[in-house]
Amino acid sequence: MTDIFSQQPIDTLITCDWIIPVTAGDPVLEQHAIAVHQGKIVDVLATADALQTYSAKHLHKLPQHALIPGFINAHTHSAMNLFRGMSDDLALMDWLNNHIWPAEAKWLSKDFVADGSRLAIAEMIKGGITCFNDMYFFPNVTARIASETGIRATVGLIVFDFPSAWGEGPDDYFQKGLSVHAEFRNHPLIQTALAPHAPYTVSDAPLSRVRMLADELDIPVHIHLHETNDEVQGSLRDHGERPMARLQRLGLLNSQLIAVHMTQLTDDEIELAAASGIHVVHCPQSNLKLASGFTPVGRLQRAGVNVCIGTDGAASNNDLDMLDEMRTAATLAKAVDNNARTLPAADALRAATINGAKALGIDSFTGSLQIGKSADMVAIDLHNLRTQPVHHALSQVVYAASSSQVSDVWVNGKQLLANHRLLTLDEDAILENSREWLKKIQN
Amino acid sequence: MTDIFSQQPIDTLITCDWIIPVTAGDPVLEQHAIAVHQGKIVDVLATADALQTYSAKHLHKLPQHALIPGFINAHTHSAMNLFRGMSDDLALMDWLNNHIWPAEAKWLSKDFVADGSRLAIAEMIKGGITCFNDMYFFPNVTARIASETGIRATVGLIVFDFPSAWGEGPDDYFQKGLSVHAEFRNHPLIQTALAPHAPYTVSDAPLSRVRMLADELDIPVHIHLHETNDEVQGSLRDHGERPMARLQRLGLLNSQLIAVHMTQLTDDEIELAAASGIHVVHCPQSNLKLASGFTPVGRLQRAGVNVCIGTDGAASNNDLDMLDEMRTAATLAKAVDNNARTLPAADALRAATINGAKALGIDSFTGSLQIGKSADMVAIDLHNLRTQPVHHALSQVVYAASSSQVSDVWVNGKQLLANHRLLTLDEDAILENSREWLKKIQN
Repeated sequence: MTDIFSQQPIDTLITCDWIIPVTAGDPVLEQHAIAVHQGKIVDVLATADALQTYSAKHLHKLPQHALIPGFINAHTHSAMNLFRGMSDDLALMDWLNNHIWPAEAKWLSKDFVADGSRLAIAEMIKGGITCFNDMYFFPNVTARIASETGIRATVGLIVFDFPSAWGEGPDDYFQKGLSVHAEFRNHPLIQTALAPHAPYTVSDAPLSRVRMLADELDIPVHIHLHETNDEVQGSLRDHGERPMARLQRLGLLNSQLIAVHMTQLTDDEIELAAASGIHVVHCPQSNLKLASGFTPVGRLQRAGVNVCIGTDGAASNNDLDMLDEMRTAATLAKAVDNNARTLPAADALRAATINGAKALGIDSFTGSLQIGKSADMVAIDLHNLRTQPVHHALSQVVYAASSSQVSDVWVNGKQLLANHRLLTLDEDAILENSREWLKKIQN
Repeated sequence: MTDIFSQQPIDTLITCDWIIPVTAGDPVLEQHAIAVHQGKIVDVLATADALQTYSAKHLHKLPQHALIPGFINAHTHSAMNLFRGMSDDLALMDWLNNHIWPAEAKWLSKDFVADGSRLAIAEMIKGGITCFNDMYFFPNVTARIASETGIRATVGLIVFDFPSAWGEGPDDYFQKGLSVHAEFRNHPLIQTALAPHAPYTVSDAPLSRVRMLADELDIPVHIHLHETNDEVQGSLRDHGERPMARLQRLGLLNSQLIAVHMTQLTDDEIELAAASGIHVVHCPQSNLKLASGFTPVGRLQRAGVNVCIGTDGAASNNDLDMLDEMRTAATLAKAVDNNARTLPAADALRAATINGAKALGIDSFTGSLQIGKSADMVAIDLHNLRTQPVHHALSQVVYAASSSQVSDVWVNGKQLLANHRLLTLDEDAILENSREWLKKIQN
């Protein structure tokens, strides 16, 4: 008998057919529940026990759903959503020099970044992303929009050699970045990272300053690295060394470094990545579309490197769909490694969740469903033609589910998506606003 | 002024913001309409003119939608949907020998094929597939289910050396196949193809008979070919020649041949493929997941080979999502070819539609939206967070849209999906039936 007087009052109880906590041993817990109080996971237990033990203000019964940690999109450029599909079928430098950078020169503004970020964050929440690692101009604006919507974000304090609407040059970027860092330093959801764009757009002096500030502020460094063969050849030509060697010389290869792409790697560089403790963000769809190359995920993992997953920006991907990106990562890694056992489903889900948290230095409080961590959780409805029958819930999540099956999302215990409906954003207004931008850009 | 008395009565008129007919020059027609009468496309014209010219029994106004030819899934094993996610992260022969073939030995039956086909066809219609090329046991059952649901299908008359629940051996497979061919020979939606499973499962004598029957019946030959390096090495060991050379010796390399996978190809074999006029079905997600290899799509296309796209079966993919498969094909082809201009969006859409129709020999009446062709059409709702803003409708369809945005589907002018709802299948009953199969298989 349930004695309601002895039940423990909590904020939220969620019961599911499957909970995939992404913890040691990769368990799939059937008929389990998660108890949440004051933003934190306070219990993970069998549903029958949970219903006896807890009295919840909000009870969500989600049969046929899998509950997983929210996806951590470890690399994106949110505001670029407004450039989605503007220029396809081009290689990286052609695409940047002749399409993206001219468009940015023309359109970049606070309003552009606010509206683009809002569109991106809405897309990300609907697809089960609870945290994103951003690199773009006006990071204060993206941080503000993220904060308003309740999603978790690490905003990059971007640094380039050249000027933009956001800053006049390295000194100005650092000054503005430091002020963004100060503004959000005690924010419960927003973190910052230093974000020198790439070795080919930032010279030695500002890169050295990045290293110094990363030490001082104890925040990550987020950079595009070894994205294409052209980048490597250009560095050999201009600096007499490969980009990784240059970053090593400048003291940047350490566990604070989040190195994005890494498609061009020698065996020695893979060993160096492992030995120095850098984190690698794999963006398979962007690498394929821009013909940048193939990240050696299997070899990196065997060397002990922490590999996580990012969508990249919508201008090169062309969506911010981590479920789909995870699936591409899981299948592509097998073909590249010539081994169908490489990056199995459980490893792919780790790469898309807890590994991203490790890279961002926030794994102590997010990235897996464990008692004491923040309730950053996503429910995926497997009662769908494309995920039936459910022989293995983990397989259906990684290899078959569509982001349209993401039904509910919580960050820090607060619900942001309820039965496919955004609670903190006005979807119709965002769609209308995007069409307004299209009209402006096309004129 | 519209003079309603002079308007031409037709069955159906569909107005859309964008029609992508997949015809010469790859036009994207804005604010256009398609007029359909007695199953056929009778006009493609500006919406304003269409509303004056035609009086339709069914008028579908689909603003913010793109209308495209239905996807042609050029290779699948429909009934295997019931094995979706049963065994992942394995190489082809391990997966076949130790998982799939034992499961088939235990479960294969008319009921299994009927229920699996129904689940697959429901998934395919919801994802905008209007025609599929199937290879599996009990093709008569799959043909019957397809016919009941109104989807177009080419069912493979499967041939193996070894027995199965469907046949005792080659002679029996041919006899049963011929009877399926006779049963459906005048069916408006169902075609047949000879389907010797693969070079490594069918010996020379039945392959020769396949060639003879293909001539006699004038139907395609559907075979797995050069799927893995193991297959090629095995053929060298057992036959002293590579599989393509063996098929050439047996007279099978001609424009009736639909060669699936083709990940292992020398330059000479690419030339041979072009010279002989065979069609290649690219199944990128299956090839990646089973670590089979990389089909050289760019090189095949430059040689002049007709390349189409298939999902493969859900046991190896793990979904039947042609939009997603098309996107993987388009992006993967660039990286494999080291050229971001390879397989641009328009080419990828051709590969997923008209090229499949060519391979199946049905391009005279389907595969593109042209006057006189069957009305096999799919509407994709681009008014969605992941496809806004619409700089280019073709880009959004190929690089960003999700199959969940497929709203309406017609085959031969008959509507099979209306505003995301299946009209000829009971989705709830199919989901329930799939769960029943799960219980049986797990016990």
